[in-house]
Amino acid sequence: MTTASVYLSGEWKTSSGTKTFQAHNPATGETVGDQYPVSNWADMEQALQSAADCDLITRDWAGDRFADLLEAYASQLENRAEEIVEQANLETALPVSPRLKDAEFPRTLAQLRSAAQAARSGEWAMPVIDDANNIRSMYRSIGPVFVIGPNNFPLAFNGISGGDFAAAVAAGNPVIAKAHPAHPGTTRLMAECLVNSLMAVNFPANFIQLIYDIAPEEGLKAIRDSRIAAVGFTGSQKAGVAIKAAADKAGKPVYVEMSSINPVFVLPGTLAEKSEAFADEFTGSCLMGSGQFCTNPGLVILPPGEEAKKWIELVRDRFAAAKTGPLLTEGVKDSLLDSIRNLVEGGAELLTGGHAAKEVSCAAQNTLLAVDAEKFLADSDLFQQEAFGNCSLIVTTSDASQMAAIAQSLEGQLTGCVYLTDQPEDEAIYQQLEPVLRRRVGRLLNNKMPTGVAVSPAMNHGGPFPATGHPGFTAVGIPASIRRFSMLECYDNVPEHRLPEALRNA
Amino acid sequence: MTTASVYLSGEWKTSSGTKTFQAHNPATGETVGDQYPVSNWADMEQALQSAADCDLITRDWAGDRFADLLEAYASQLENRAEEIVEQANLETALPVSPRLKDAEFPRTLAQLRSAAQAARSGEWAMPVIDDANNIRSMYRSIGPVFVIGPNNFPLAFNGISGGDFAAAVAAGNPVIAKAHPAHPGTTRLMAECLVNSLMAVNFPANFIQLIYDIAPEEGLKAIRDSRIAAVGFTGSQKAGVAIKAAADKAGKPVYVEMSSINPVFVLPGTLAEKSEAFADEFTGSCLMGSGQFCTNPGLVILPPGEEAKKWIELVRDRFAAAKTGPLLTEGVKDSLLDSIRNLVEGGAELLTGGHAAKEVSCAAQNTLLAVDAEKFLADSDLFQQEAFGNCSLIVTTSDASQMAAIAQSLEGQLTGCVYLTDQPEDEAIYQQLEPVLRRRVGRLLNNKMPTGVAVSPAMNHGGPFPATGHPGFTAVGIPASIRRFSMLECYDNVPEHRLPEALRNA
Repeated sequence: MTTASVYLSGEWKTSSGTKTFQAHNPATGETVGDQYPVSNWADMEQALQSAADCDLITRDWAGDRFADLLEAYASQLENRAEEIVEQANLETALPVSPRLKDAEFPRTLAQLRSAAQAARSGEWAMPVIDDANNIRSMYRSIGPVFVIGPNNFPLAFNGISGGDFAAAVAAGNPVIAKAHPAHPGTTRLMAECLVNSLMAVNFPANFIQLIYDIAPEEGLKAIRDSRIAAVGFTGSQKAGVAIKAAADKAGKPVYVEMSSINPVFVLPGTLAEKSEAFADEFTGSCLMGSGQFCTNPGLVILPPGEEAKKWIELVRDRFAAAKTGPLLTEGVKDSLLDSIRNLVEGGAELLTGGHAAKEVSCAAQNTLLAVDAEKFLADSDLFQQEAFGNCSLIVTTSDASQMAAIAQSLEGQLTGCVYLTDQPEDEAIYQQLEPVLRRRVGRLLNNKMPTGVAVSPAMNHGGPFPATGHPGFTAVGIPASIRRFSMLECYDNVPEHRLPEALRNA
Repeated sequence: MTTASVYLSGEWKTSSGTKTFQAHNPATGETVGDQYPVSNWADMEQALQSAADCDLITRDWAGDRFADLLEAYASQLENRAEEIVEQANLETALPVSPRLKDAEFPRTLAQLRSAAQAARSGEWAMPVIDDANNIRSMYRSIGPVFVIGPNNFPLAFNGISGGDFAAAVAAGNPVIAKAHPAHPGTTRLMAECLVNSLMAVNFPANFIQLIYDIAPEEGLKAIRDSRIAAVGFTGSQKAGVAIKAAADKAGKPVYVEMSSINPVFVLPGTLAEKSEAFADEFTGSCLMGSGQFCTNPGLVILPPGEEAKKWIELVRDRFAAAKTGPLLTEGVKDSLLDSIRNLVEGGAELLTGGHAAKEVSCAAQNTLLAVDAEKFLADSDLFQQEAFGNCSLIVTTSDASQMAAIAQSLEGQLTGCVYLTDQPEDEAIYQQLEPVLRRRVGRLLNNKMPTGVAVSPAMNHGGPFPATGHPGFTAVGIPASIRRFSMLECYDNVPEHRLPEALRNA
């Protein structure tokens, strides 16, 4: 069987790594496609030097050129849409429709094109011209960016095609991409499109580098290497914290999007007005894609009273009845079942599910747990551990004032939802809750589920630690996401002809 | 003798700390004024809780209110200008004129008023309204900010009155300020003005907290405490790295402005055209204020040739002839002399100075050192250690191409200067040098010394590590400096009446 090539120094070549791996179809448990290499340091050393060499050439290029590349790439991807979607489906078991073909692939193209537009306009760079002092500044490229993609979005967050990739390139930076080993074939197909695009728009062939996997300690060594200027990562908290620590120590920008349980606070009016509809909405959001979203609603805080008890039954029935879908990898399944076990051992009541599912090769039962507010608050560190997948923990309260206390006890989150009506009782609770919750989350929603992260300039897909590493940055939402991979450059008394174009008066 | 009070929980009160210290006049070696307490954890615990309590009240306030406070404060300071300047002169020996009265005090007022203006306009918050998706976002306050000021700017970078203070307040955050123990009396006078201002504009009396000193381990404990949302620090690399590590681990924003040697690259045309004038300019910049500026030119890279040798003599004579001024503290003096010793032991040639000065109580001789490019490049870590004070290291080259290599070997810097003419030879060297140097510095200057950091919206007083902790942020330059102390908040499907004013359509 063939071992796939890595893309280093502008060529597809045999990896120096000696280990290989194969992807699995989570729906069947069968292996999919070629062997892929686990890169070693020799591969990474090539990638680092080649990216640094390329950066010397491309760092002065205008935004137009990077826009051309991103647009050419989007078109190349479109040409091979069917093949890419099919491969992603084989490697992830995410459904072609409505997910991969209808949502994630178009989103990926839209992100690339939106980044291209931003690179072309140059507004993301926020040029400031102070004529009186003859001082000018703008954000400019920072150097090679190492982008490490997650398991759960094979296209839209892939290291070779996702939001971090698009942002890093739009800012003018060469990229070293690490595929997630759960979908190497999908990544390779897209990288082929990208390599074609480099040629089509006369970019240096070594503007990107691609590896499929590398040992964690060698990945961290690369992050510490002076040839890496910044790092983008989406994935687990454990890996993210290690990556952030390595980059922090080296004093370089690092953007890690890690864990989030995305609390949903339910005020009394909602249960009184539309208990069933809300149960449907919550169940749909929580179980969609087997719950494998960064913004999956993993914690629901209910108001006191009988309505809450009834709602729990509604949701329990829906969870039990809903079809169980495959999880992305055996690792995801094991981690989910471990997390559920921890919650139960900590005192949460298992309402439904909790075990491996029998129907599908790699799946867990839809799982609903419950705990009361006193218990939650007594050990909030335990109860707010993320259980990534089709699972949620309900917190029952005996007094609405417990809601703000629960919000206060939470770590940083990507999102926080409040379901409420315009009734005075709900508004009064909201006024207590919102100032606390707002500081804990990157995005505050009213009467809307957190899944579904619109590609909008107003989006914040970020939040306080440990949702991410810094609450001032967003991974989705152009142009803000582009500025992450840039540095502020100031020109003091530099004459017109030596200034970047955006800072000239003419 | 009286021990001064700390300002905690809205009152001037006796510190719980048992140790005290006094300031010294560096010009005479004599102690100045009262005893000041070294705070202990009990003080800090009060500060943390009080700041967190106040934040619950003020976090929803509009920018106008913070603008009112900053403006009232500037006026209060103006009322006591003479007293403040005199005290600062006693504690730092920085000259009243042209420094404290004529430059630093007006700058401090200008910064406070400019921050007020930004808080009032609200543009710093970059509100984005996406009506189609009903998603909105803006930067908003983040919570209590711990501001730790440096020794070298008793007014304009003081924790209670400087750029970080103004930015943190303009963003809407309560501040816990730590004075630098070299100028506690100056800090107290300004804090008195601030406390008056709080009353004048109906702010909670506990919106600010002031301590004069605290043991490093307790300062770090405060930084890790969840009630601190962000940290601003200006000072030594050693302290800055420890502060950054503590904040990074806790996942909170930290802005440290640390060390910088501010390289000056001199291209052949400048020496050919105006060797004497440039020697005057460099000497003035390097020795002003005994060289105690973050942007002091501590490294000068000369072109090959006879002109360079002559220029070195010109500068050596000027350094030897120039009056020696006092350094801020005995610690600064010892550190400077140690740094000079290290450079000499590493192989640098001592051209003039190098020892404690006899004329003034706390001073070092104006010191000029030289090393050739080969030696510099062979041990660039050693030769780029900051020697904070009236000292500079000259690097001689045998080939102009060594300049880019030297730039490449440098750590991150606040500034980088190039002196050159429009002659083709200079332009050609610049084209090699600039792309490398630009990535190493926050501010690139042409034919201008780095000292003097204009208060301009285009200013970048920042730069890559270890000049600061992140090359995307600036400590001077409103509104960018304000955004450091904020978080990005996004509102998704939140109705008009629950939105912050800046995000409403009406």
